[in-house]
Amino acid sequence: MTNTNIQLTSTISEDNKLTLALQDIDMPQPNADDVVIRIEAAPLNPSDLGVLFSAADLSTAVQSGTEKSPVVTADVPAQFMPSLKTRVGKATPVGNEGAGTVVAAGSSPAAQALMGKMVAVIGGGSYRQYHCANIQSCLVLKEGTTAKQGASSFVNPLTALTMVETMRAEGHKAIIHAAAASNLGQMLNRICIADGVDLINIVRKPEQETLLRDMGAKYIVNSSSESFLDDLTAAIIETGATIAFDPIGGGQLTSDILNCMEVAAAKNMKEHSIYGSDTFKQVYIYGALNRGPITINRNFGFAWGVNGFLLFNALGKLGSETIVAMRKRVADEITTTFASHYTHEVSLSEALKLQSIAAYSKQATGEKYLITPQS
Amino acid sequence: MTNTNIQLTSTISEDNKLTLALQDIDMPQPNADDVVIRIEAAPLNPSDLGVLFSAADLSTAVQSGTEKSPVVTADVPAQFMPSLKTRVGKATPVGNEGAGTVVAAGSSPAAQALMGKMVAVIGGGSYRQYHCANIQSCLVLKEGTTAKQGASSFVNPLTALTMVETMRAEGHKAIIHAAAASNLGQMLNRICIADGVDLINIVRKPEQETLLRDMGAKYIVNSSSESFLDDLTAAIIETGATIAFDPIGGGQLTSDILNCMEVAAAKNMKEHSIYGSDTFKQVYIYGALNRGPITINRNFGFAWGVNGFLLFNALGKLGSETIVAMRKRVADEITTTFASHYTHEVSLSEALKLQSIAAYSKQATGEKYLITPQS
Repeated sequence: MTNTNIQLTSTISEDNKLTLALQDIDMPQPNADDVVIRIEAAPLNPSDLGVLFSAADLSTAVQSGTEKSPVVTADVPAQFMPSLKTRVGKATPVGNEGAGTVVAAGSSPAAQALMGKMVAVIGGGSYRQYHCANIQSCLVLKEGTTAKQGASSFVNPLTALTMVETMRAEGHKAIIHAAAASNLGQMLNRICIADGVDLINIVRKPEQETLLRDMGAKYIVNSSSESFLDDLTAAIIETGATIAFDPIGGGQLTSDILNCMEVAAAKNMKEHSIYGSDTFKQVYIYGALNRGPITINRNFGFAWGVNGFLLFNALGKLGSETIVAMRKRVADEITTTFASHYTHEVSLSEALKLQSIAAYSKQATGEKYLITPQS
Repeated sequence: MTNTNIQLTSTISEDNKLTLALQDIDMPQPNADDVVIRIEAAPLNPSDLGVLFSAADLSTAVQSGTEKSPVVTADVPAQFMPSLKTRVGKATPVGNEGAGTVVAAGSSPAAQALMGKMVAVIGGGSYRQYHCANIQSCLVLKEGTTAKQGASSFVNPLTALTMVETMRAEGHKAIIHAAAASNLGQMLNRICIADGVDLINIVRKPEQETLLRDMGAKYIVNSSSESFLDDLTAAIIETGATIAFDPIGGGQLTSDILNCMEVAAAKNMKEHSIYGSDTFKQVYIYGALNRGPITINRNFGFAWGVNGFLLFNALGKLGSETIVAMRKRVADEITTTFASHYTHEVSLSEALKLQSIAAYSKQATGEKYLITPQS
């Protein structure tokens, strides 16, 4: 354990500027139930980009600082500043999760038991070299699991598992997933195959169709195809899917999904109703890949819901037993069902180079960055 | 009891035509638990217009038939015909509710007990002179209640009561209501005053503000005002309203309501979150006064829901005890809390005159038609 501890921070200042920089911080001192983890790998998830860039206009990003300690500044459009006032002047640590070796532990037996273990951790500030966390926020990985394999043990795996549990808890029998070729989508596909749940994967590109087909996906529809609505409706009729998860939000996809669900439901209606079918149709929007307006063209009656979906809120509705079982499954299957694929690995300083930012800020499906704070 | 029984029907034919006409039908024969009601008054609710006109283009409406038995035909745009196929060729009776005197009863003691009573009735086909219904669909009105007073005992009263019950069941503490000067809105205002529930009334016109103010409403905001969003936000901060009911749907109002709720919730946040507040914000859309797209500009995080709201589905979520209590309250307070106001009374044949249709199809707030099938 060295004496340096570098972390990546994002700061918004009163003059409408965002500053990303590396910061030297003290080596953490664990409380009784804490451990100190040497973070060896941490993924760049879409939710991390929200903290990192906030509302800044990245087209104004400028590089300064040194090669070893780069600084990036960018303008924050004035209209967003009022909603950011609780962030102004605070160097906000970034990184929702990561993995590494426990190098120090608090006095409690439970904390001591983790010494030397490879763990994954959830909680803000994983883009640093040494991270202190309560043992409840840690997941002990199986012997032989690498930090890179375990880096994404929480956000994507628990989100995918929570989607399936939400489907069950709310009485649906099959799932529609948009942007389905993502790391999360691939996990969801593997879970659904393992659990025998029908999953309709919506993708945009032929190569994404191929990717998922090769992974055993049965229902894949391409939203760029002219026959998209017919294809989606046919898949809904076959599977009975009445719940969808969409990370996009903006645009017409939510509306299209609800309308296709209604066309499928109407096939079984013997009598016309001005209220539409009584089949309840649900879309959960769990991201904002498109921040534009969600446009909903109602032609699907009154039995429908469109809701925001946030992992921690959704987990809160499930029982703690379910959550314990989920975490165990993730640890057991982290190299199979919950395997993540990274296209780039960058150090903390490389993460703050403009060309890296230009690449990972696009959030292209299939492109995923891993930060390695020890390199 | 005469031997004629006239009913109003709506028929869609294969040649894309809607036909509204009066039809002579047999006098109904009640089963053991049925009663025959001489319908003396039946309201024209927005939901009735949906059955009456379906997807027809009323600008093409043409009058024929006779003075006593008018016929109206109109074109149904071809694109709507597939969704109407279960209606084609069937003369559909119209009218969801009404009131009148029980003139015949089935053999059961419960049915016999209603003989001669003034009752309100729910269930399709109230735009006829004699209507047969199961006693479960009837509400016995208090001695001295007129048919006109009791005609709207179900749709509006139960919808307004169900809104308040839904607020309670889902843990909200105040309500926002759009198009709040309607008959339904006036009832909701009276219920909320009686029950001590804060209600924010959204209206569009100064005279609607005055109307509600004179009825004791405390929170009234005008969506035509330049300060609408600020006014709505201020009222939300004061009341803590996190649930809204909107009969309009199309346009930006749903989005505006959610954004104002979030601004109010953010006042209490000490730390910025990219996910927005964790205050759950709900809008129920219970009508389609604007059939255009619902445009949702998300600036309100992930703790939100937008749902269709249909009386019968919502009632289904409440217990039967609650429903029994609601019905009793309606009967007890039909001339006070649940009083309806009609601007026009028309006979069955007058309801099929083009000038009547032109007026009531506008669904102008404050304009309400009552059909009197015996006149």
